[in-house]
Amino acid sequence: MQLSAIYKPVQEDLVKVGDELRLVSKVDFPWLAELLDYSLKSGGKGIRPALTLLSGKLYHYHLDTLLPAATAVELLHVATLVHDDAIDKSPIRRGRPTLYKVWGEDKAVLLGDYLFAKAGELTAITRNLRVIKLFAQTLRTISTGELAQTFGAYNLGQTYQQYIQRISSKTAALFILATESGAVLSEAPETSIKILNEYGYNLGIAFQIVDDILDFIGTEEEIGKPIGSDLAQGTLTLPAMLLLERYPEDNPVKRLFQNRDRQEEIKLAIELVRNSPIVEECHSVASDYCAKACHNLDLLPDNASRQSLIDIANYVIRRKR
Amino acid sequence: MQLSAIYKPVQEDLVKVGDELRLVSKVDFPWLAELLDYSLKSGGKGIRPALTLLSGKLYHYHLDTLLPAATAVELLHVATLVHDDAIDKSPIRRGRPTLYKVWGEDKAVLLGDYLFAKAGELTAITRNLRVIKLFAQTLRTISTGELAQTFGAYNLGQTYQQYIQRISSKTAALFILATESGAVLSEAPETSIKILNEYGYNLGIAFQIVDDILDFIGTEEEIGKPIGSDLAQGTLTLPAMLLLERYPEDNPVKRLFQNRDRQEEIKLAIELVRNSPIVEECHSVASDYCAKACHNLDLLPDNASRQSLIDIANYVIRRKR
Repeated sequence: MQLSAIYKPVQEDLVKVGDELRLVSKVDFPWLAELLDYSLKSGGKGIRPALTLLSGKLYHYHLDTLLPAATAVELLHVATLVHDDAIDKSPIRRGRPTLYKVWGEDKAVLLGDYLFAKAGELTAITRNLRVIKLFAQTLRTISTGELAQTFGAYNLGQTYQQYIQRISSKTAALFILATESGAVLSEAPETSIKILNEYGYNLGIAFQIVDDILDFIGTEEEIGKPIGSDLAQGTLTLPAMLLLERYPEDNPVKRLFQNRDRQEEIKLAIELVRNSPIVEECHSVASDYCAKACHNLDLLPDNASRQSLIDIANYVIRRKR
Repeated sequence: MQLSAIYKPVQEDLVKVGDELRLVSKVDFPWLAELLDYSLKSGGKGIRPALTLLSGKLYHYHLDTLLPAATAVELLHVATLVHDDAIDKSPIRRGRPTLYKVWGEDKAVLLGDYLFAKAGELTAITRNLRVIKLFAQTLRTISTGELAQTFGAYNLGQTYQQYIQRISSKTAALFILATESGAVLSEAPETSIKILNEYGYNLGIAFQIVDDILDFIGTEEEIGKPIGSDLAQGTLTLPAMLLLERYPEDNPVKRLFQNRDRQEEIKLAIELVRNSPIVEECHSVASDYCAKACHNLDLLPDNASRQSLIDIANYVIRRKR
């Protein structure tokens, strides 16, 4: 199933999110407009704003607040990517040079700050204090997760639990913001807000595990950046963890993390993961999270948007990019 | 007059702001606590939170909202400094190594993000939508000002008007946030909110002009960082502008901006500025802004806090650090 088909219940309003994002680039300073335009035309999948609108369509669909909230969620996402690329010195994302690569680190840091602020302003438009608070908490959680990742770089002793906690902070938190703010703004009952919060959490974890798998088994064309980027950054993801478990002694990940900067070890690790049941094992973990994500959705109103949430979970598992 | 004497009407509550800041460092992860502790123990003058509390003490002093607002203002300030140092690769601030220098660029960027978020959360505690909106707008204005500075680096063709606009964004905006949020939270009438907004604007401009003067005439010990940092970054400030006007042909700033990285030109520019009426001219501009800042204060309630606002304006002009 294509994403466009899955998004159908909110497709028209997702176009409006796109319009809102284009409005963000309409500023007086041409040098700023150029940076904003570049960062916002990056061609993401739009999963996060879709989640806000779909979650918001289960109860009272108030587009006047859901639209700025969904736009804010996407802006926050873009802002974190812009900062991540500057921090990781990543040259390519989504098949084109990163803002960091084109304009340099200083511009990337400041543009990320600008986007955080703009996202905050859009969130304030909802006039919903619970959503505003959740937005700020989410940015703090994401920053904590990213810090945990940099502090944990090249550390072979990380546990599975620490991995889940880290991706919960750096990825799932934003999915929770997307779904929970949609639920809150549509006046969903507390039990439903909780279900959509848990859906966001589990979907986010699954999404990141699949991301981490794709960094081993994807192609550069598919994922829009070099394969093995996580290992190159010293980030221990689930496939690499399972590889360490499988070959505790003679292991390229171990050698890489001990000696750094050894391109041949990355290639070897990728080969080993690809030719082992590790990919399947990781997919199985991600599938479990997707199943958990959908577990309680049947307690929500039965409509097309609810079906879309289920379809997104299935898409996340199957996606190749 | 010492700052501690000026702060007297809110001294007790400024101690509470300090307590709140210390609470920010109390987090579960020791690596995060260490970064927070380092960034928040930087020994600033506390002018911005004092402005919030003093502005808030002219009408209904609600400490339950003024305290988180004042703390948020200081956190936002620290966050922008942490990012600035990473962007400028500044090794020293306030007489000690910057967070960037000790922990590296990645940690500095992410810790800045964390502090923005924490400041946002504290602002949300006020439950005042106007203050929340102003907070987000302020972060966006500051980012725009900083971007303007990086885009304008080594550009000799900047006008006085552009300089004022730039320092208005990068510095005065935060002073406005400090005073205006204090006014709003204390239920000041709109005319008074406007007066305190204008006070914040003019004081902020004066503060930055004095900062720019000190970068020429201070000592490293006084200002806590190397003299001539602005020129080294290619930032054209008022003293440098006036130097260009005074010696349009043979000018070290001109040569520096055209050829970059020439330490002897910086030294020469500093010498020329010190031995010219330029310092006095700049001080006169800053004094005018301070006078403008205080101009309408007599329309506000006559109490000790109002006097402190006047005293702060006088302090800003005289300060040596």
